[in-house]
Amino acid sequence: MHFDHAGIATEDAQELAALYGDLFGLEVAHEEEFDGMRVVFLEVDGGYFELLEPLEEGTISRYLEENGNGIHHLALATDDIDAALETVRDHGVALIDEEPRPGAWGHSVAFLHPKDTGGILIELVEH
Amino acid sequence: MHFDHAGIATEDAQELAALYGDLFGLEVAHEEEFDGMRVVFLEVDGGYFELLEPLEEGTISRYLEENGNGIHHLALATDDIDAALETVRDHGVALIDEEPRPGAWGHSVAFLHPKDTGGILIELVEH
Repeated sequence: MHFDHAGIATEDAQELAALYGDLFGLEVAHEEEFDGMRVVFLEVDGGYFELLEPLEEGTISRYLEENGNGIHHLALATDDIDAALETVRDHGVALIDEEPRPGAWGHSVAFLHPKDTGGILIELVEH
Repeated sequence: MHFDHAGIATEDAQELAALYGDLFGLEVAHEEEFDGMRVVFLEVDGGYFELLEPLEEGTISRYLEENGNGIHHLALATDDIDAALETVRDHGVALIDEEPRPGAWGHSVAFLHPKDTGGILIELVEH
């Protein structure tokens, strides 16, 4: 599997995208409203920073209330998310998404429970 | 600039490396003791997960006391860290490292203050 993106929770995705454009030359690869969030993907050459701004109550708004802006999760890309999920399930990892579900940008995604992945929220992604 | 690594604070870098090997097929690209930490780089194809385990009191041990295991920072690679630092300084970003310093794996690194980077701890790296 390879790096796909780092998910960043932010109060203002477009402001952060503009800042990272100015500071680091990062460009917006994709932007959409998805699942009650504004989602902006910044190209980092081999992967993305996925900026997540809540537009309604949900996981990201709760994360922001507790933590403020922060690095919410890391995503690994796979060519076969079903096989990848089977592997982690075989290792006894609890799944937040028992089956792949539609994610942002039309990808198929599944989140693993951080209690079984060393305290880090990991997302699997198939493009 | 492009993605270099996600820095992950962990109580046990080797245990986490073994787990991510089993779950995701990630392999250890480099391991060393550096600056009071055990540092393990996992290859994620186009970048790394940098596992940071404190061996003595310091930034990472304090992070773990406050947060438990977590995603500590994101690193962007540049071919010219001096120019990259000049750009962010020109934009008024406070620097944790005013000048590049030796980082793990023999890289030249500098951390930017999260108060000026949208609350995210960003590291610049030149290999």
